[in-house]
Amino acid sequence: MKPLILVSNDDGITSKGILTLINVMKTLGDVIVVAPDGPQSGMGHAITVGETLRLEENFIFEGVKAYECSGTPADCVKMARHFVLKGQRQPDVVVSGVNHGSNTSISVLYSGTMSAAIEGAIEGTPAIGFSLCDFSHDADFSHAEEYIRKITKQVLDKGLPKGIALNVNFPPKRNEAIKGIRLCRQANAKWVEEFDERYDPNGRRYFWMAGNFVNFDKGEDNDEWAIANNYVSVVPCQFDLTAHQALPVLNELWDII
Amino acid sequence: MKPLILVSNDDGITSKGILTLINVMKTLGDVIVVAPDGPQSGMGHAITVGETLRLEENFIFEGVKAYECSGTPADCVKMARHFVLKGQRQPDVVVSGVNHGSNTSISVLYSGTMSAAIEGAIEGTPAIGFSLCDFSHDADFSHAEEYIRKITKQVLDKGLPKGIALNVNFPPKRNEAIKGIRLCRQANAKWVEEFDERYDPNGRRYFWMAGNFVNFDKGEDNDEWAIANNYVSVVPCQFDLTAHQALPVLNELWDII
Repeated sequence: MKPLILVSNDDGITSKGILTLINVMKTLGDVIVVAPDGPQSGMGHAITVGETLRLEENFIFEGVKAYECSGTPADCVKMARHFVLKGQRQPDVVVSGVNHGSNTSISVLYSGTMSAAIEGAIEGTPAIGFSLCDFSHDADFSHAEEYIRKITKQVLDKGLPKGIALNVNFPPKRNEAIKGIRLCRQANAKWVEEFDERYDPNGRRYFWMAGNFVNFDKGEDNDEWAIANNYVSVVPCQFDLTAHQALPVLNELWDII
Repeated sequence: MKPLILVSNDDGITSKGILTLINVMKTLGDVIVVAPDGPQSGMGHAITVGETLRLEENFIFEGVKAYECSGTPADCVKMARHFVLKGQRQPDVVVSGVNHGSNTSISVLYSGTMSAAIEGAIEGTPAIGFSLCDFSHDADFSHAEEYIRKITKQVLDKGLPKGIALNVNFPPKRNEAIKGIRLCRQANAKWVEEFDERYDPNGRRYFWMAGNFVNFDKGEDNDEWAIANNYVSVVPCQFDLTAHQALPVLNELWDII
């Protein structure tokens, strides 16, 4: 039996990146799509509570059952499992993306792409978020396709350790071919924001979030290094946020326990 | 010099929980508030990209400089640091909450309360998210106040290990006093969603996300156990999502590297 592959993303169901992902997945198994009906970038692991959700069938992908959802990427994966596929066969893998833009290092926290993958992992399904380090609307994904296929096939064949989703980033299209795949840790880097202050036509102040990405990491075992050196970066990500190593430290340090 | 304490939350600036937190913080230092102008529950680590932000001064707290922001909890902490306090003294601690409702176990991922704290930790500032396991709008926070003060004072006095924010949950008010503080790991539990399908007055289908929380964890060293047994749970949380232990496993398992 062909594997069942659930596809979602955060750029919305009409993005070029999800079309790339669907086309590769069709070569590997049966595909079902539940994706946001519009852009949901930067949504982190948001879910829709206190508001209603819409879900409509969508007919843009030939031969693929697809739904568009008014919610976040995490909502989409929840609705796929607990409504669309309720009582039916569940997916063998959840894939998300391909995101238009980098989700390396700290961006994994803000990433809607990765929240869909992590939601899959929470449910015990192997899951992968794919991102291309090129924010253009018409980005060239062609050099990534072979790697998307290879990595997904490997995960389908061999599974993933429990509680893990993969954060896969591709370098932008360059003249030279991608050098290969690197297993990495999340780089130590962050955004330094600046708020661009403006006034609307009514004289009321508003802001745009802007800023610069600063990489503090000098290592060669992290995702920023891999992308800068034209490798595909693969970071296994966990949803247990416990800093286990800090427990004995705090136990020693504190006098209120 | 008194410490500078930045307060935020996810239930919005008019919630009872933030008022409780501000009142306790005023006994420990100088307080500045930057909080959402409305409810932002379930926002995870969302940030506002591709849309504008508003920030207005707010005068509801006596003797405390406060701002309300149209964005997410993570936006609030970013705006506090990079706009409101730009070029000035930065906070000695970031505190968030007190949330109306539990943020134990997997809920830490969906929690706007914790995203404000984690945003503080990313900037290198000790940070704490406080939540009361009672979702009522008029929840009784009185039994938590002494512990909020003790834990914040401990963090101000002794700092926190690098890259850590604390996820603190309080049991709901009971007849017996809280038994004490427990350092915990995040419990192994998840939400099993059900989507409540309805039709609007125009005959179009919509959904409410509902569901049940299921705890698979039999241990006594996790936050669910602590709350059930009337302890305050304290989980040190990290923003490095790398599953370091999975790197050698994948390295061994994969034949595409």
